[in-house]
Amino acid sequence: MTAPLKVGLAGLGTVGTAVVHLLERSRDKLVARCGRPIEIVAICARSRSKKRDIDLRKYRWVADPMELARDREIDVFAELMGGAGDPAKRAVTTALASGKSVVTANKALLARHGKKLAALAERHGGALNFEASVGGGIPIIKTLREGLNGDAFTRIYGILNGTCNYILSRMEQDRLAFADCLREAQRLGYAEADPSFDVEGRDTAQKLSILASLAFGTRLDPAAIYVEGISSITLADLDAADELGYRVKLLGVAVKTEAGIEQRVHPTMVPKDSAIAQVMGVTNAVTVDAIGLSPITLVGPGAGGMATASAVVSDLADIARGVRVLPFGRPAARMTATRKAPMQHHEGGYYIRLLARDRPGSAATIARRLAQQGISMESIVQRHTSGAERASPSGRSGRPVPVILITYATSEDAVHRALSAVRRDRVISGRPQVIRIEKN
Amino acid sequence: MTAPLKVGLAGLGTVGTAVVHLLERSRDKLVARCGRPIEIVAICARSRSKKRDIDLRKYRWVADPMELARDREIDVFAELMGGAGDPAKRAVTTALASGKSVVTANKALLARHGKKLAALAERHGGALNFEASVGGGIPIIKTLREGLNGDAFTRIYGILNGTCNYILSRMEQDRLAFADCLREAQRLGYAEADPSFDVEGRDTAQKLSILASLAFGTRLDPAAIYVEGISSITLADLDAADELGYRVKLLGVAVKTEAGIEQRVHPTMVPKDSAIAQVMGVTNAVTVDAIGLSPITLVGPGAGGMATASAVVSDLADIARGVRVLPFGRPAARMTATRKAPMQHHEGGYYIRLLARDRPGSAATIARRLAQQGISMESIVQRHTSGAERASPSGRSGRPVPVILITYATSEDAVHRALSAVRRDRVISGRPQVIRIEKN
Repeated sequence: MTAPLKVGLAGLGTVGTAVVHLLERSRDKLVARCGRPIEIVAICARSRSKKRDIDLRKYRWVADPMELARDREIDVFAELMGGAGDPAKRAVTTALASGKSVVTANKALLARHGKKLAALAERHGGALNFEASVGGGIPIIKTLREGLNGDAFTRIYGILNGTCNYILSRMEQDRLAFADCLREAQRLGYAEADPSFDVEGRDTAQKLSILASLAFGTRLDPAAIYVEGISSITLADLDAADELGYRVKLLGVAVKTEAGIEQRVHPTMVPKDSAIAQVMGVTNAVTVDAIGLSPITLVGPGAGGMATASAVVSDLADIARGVRVLPFGRPAARMTATRKAPMQHHEGGYYIRLLARDRPGSAATIARRLAQQGISMESIVQRHTSGAERASPSGRSGRPVPVILITYATSEDAVHRALSAVRRDRVISGRPQVIRIEKN
Repeated sequence: MTAPLKVGLAGLGTVGTAVVHLLERSRDKLVARCGRPIEIVAICARSRSKKRDIDLRKYRWVADPMELARDREIDVFAELMGGAGDPAKRAVTTALASGKSVVTANKALLARHGKKLAALAERHGGALNFEASVGGGIPIIKTLREGLNGDAFTRIYGILNGTCNYILSRMEQDRLAFADCLREAQRLGYAEADPSFDVEGRDTAQKLSILASLAFGTRLDPAAIYVEGISSITLADLDAADELGYRVKLLGVAVKTEAGIEQRVHPTMVPKDSAIAQVMGVTNAVTVDAIGLSPITLVGPGAGGMATASAVVSDLADIARGVRVLPFGRPAARMTATRKAPMQHHEGGYYIRLLARDRPGSAATIARRLAQQGISMESIVQRHTSGAERASPSGRSGRPVPVILITYATSEDAVHRALSAVRRDRVISGRPQVIRIEKN
């Protein structure tokens, strides 16, 4: 067990560079923990000349990722290039097919091709580790794959995108509009120039597909997930949430229902005293529910070079000490096509914010339409207009009146039907805001 | 890999019984996850005739734990008897020495003999897994041993005793005195008839010694830990904490300082907005800090049959799938005698509650004594006496006046010296209350 584990590293962005530093710094500790050193023997990246604070002369340079994936000297191919397509896909496939182990942070690749890659790893005996793909430095993959496997999971949900959580936290704490917080996040490097992948929930969906597969053995398929982003959330929603004892978070949720596994990403009202509601800023969190168990929550840094590098190195350490676990915790052949629970059958409580037209009968009509769909109300708040408006000479302002409804558990279908009817009745102006409530 | 993993189970209390049920219920899932079944082949417990909802006829009965530990048919000895002495110690030693793996929930045994047992496991090639020994269903052992090993830990701290957290939560939420909450906890089965092991912090110290060893490679030694329980905490302290933005928790803390590893268990003021402050009731939580990383917090059920059984089964599953990791994450030979940082050198902020005698100069004397030790104040609150007292005919009530001080970072030594001087000056009555502050 004294021969070093030989690593070929593909990709020298923030994470790749941090991995090089961390392995150099932790060399002795890793020998103690794994019984042998972990050594980078070759590196491949798009540009060799780009300025980085790494002495590249210490490592053999390989120009082509495919060549590195096939390299006979390496035991592990560490893929930190990103992207669901080539070259990442072809290089990872090649490495696994040649019996090497692979460590990757590539959520997009796993979400798209996870099952096939897992089958390849299984067939050729290599490990396929991806702790860094979800939740940055939070050891959620290992926890689901190995740590909690005695249990019967019923639900897994979490804050999986730091950008969105940063924006929602700033909106609430500093009373800023969505667009202002997004600009601030971009300035701080928390959001991309094109932020839609994050704020529209697609990043969360990719990560959720990985967690759902680990928890429920579902086939990975982000396209099967209902996805709604946070760009429609306003300060009025956050204020109402606060008043009603909730906080708004973008959650990825996978839950076992009688109809199958429901997977969804959307802004969510969570009780203010829940563990997940306390998670502010770029921090991530994942909660796991299982039969007969109180929930388990993991909270930590969801991104950042060091957090992600730390996850990559713990994956390498597992391989170094000979730990081999099936990539998704069970044979790829048993990662069955999900019985997908359709979103219209989703059941839960709803927050609905409407602008009722300021004329007699509006409220009665809204109440009737909801009752017709069997929807019961837990609370109704009609927002007072501001003092200035109330003092207007006309008495009735003529402006629409915000109405906030919290329903008891009902179905997505019922809510949609009731709101369509209300819109047809022309008693509201604009589109109603609908936010699902997730109980802990 | 289709031969079952054969388990001998010693101990049929709440946890042992739950393990039997969980293994029966999860059989198929475990086969999928581990590649082979996990089978209990023999059971040993104090009484065979005691009423339990298990069909004992399905299992071979062994009267003597030592005999079970030596049994040639079993691969794993699951020790759920408890106790740091015999028979647990002798049985676990025997099983490890015969090359079997051991799974145990026995924190007392590990805290006392962990290093010796780890060395035995290492020498004879068996696993020694103890996820259930700390934090019940929270996978903190695996996380420290395998999940985060790329990092340089600087501090680990947590709420490790559900009884104490339940009592402190009830005191705060229902404004009850310590003694009343303790009685309530006993009634609900959260506290033992003799509660001192829990409320005096010794249970937390045993668990902390295990976590500290995993995080820092220290030799296990609960006797080396500074321990203070919660029985001196009053509602006045909780109220003051609330007012100052803190909550009081019994924490176990292990922290790397220049003087060595400081290990301590004591009531602690934690900022109200920290993840750990949100943890109420019997729930446990552990936070890990490492250089260059945001903290990682794990929250979940700290006790209970199912939570603990789930941890035991995940330990068995690791053995079934062939995962072998050094018990404390590094060779036993490298679990070095801790360089113990003495408590009098502890540095941090302090909460001090005094009863100042109601006479001229008391406050000035207190302030001078603190200043002489170089202690700076972050805040001083002199609690108003109630209306009834203020309305007393004498004008000055004659009763001592509660004074609450929050210091900036100072040393344990300085605080003790200052308070000894204040007591000698006879400007306070009773013993000052001192609670350490832990920043996140």
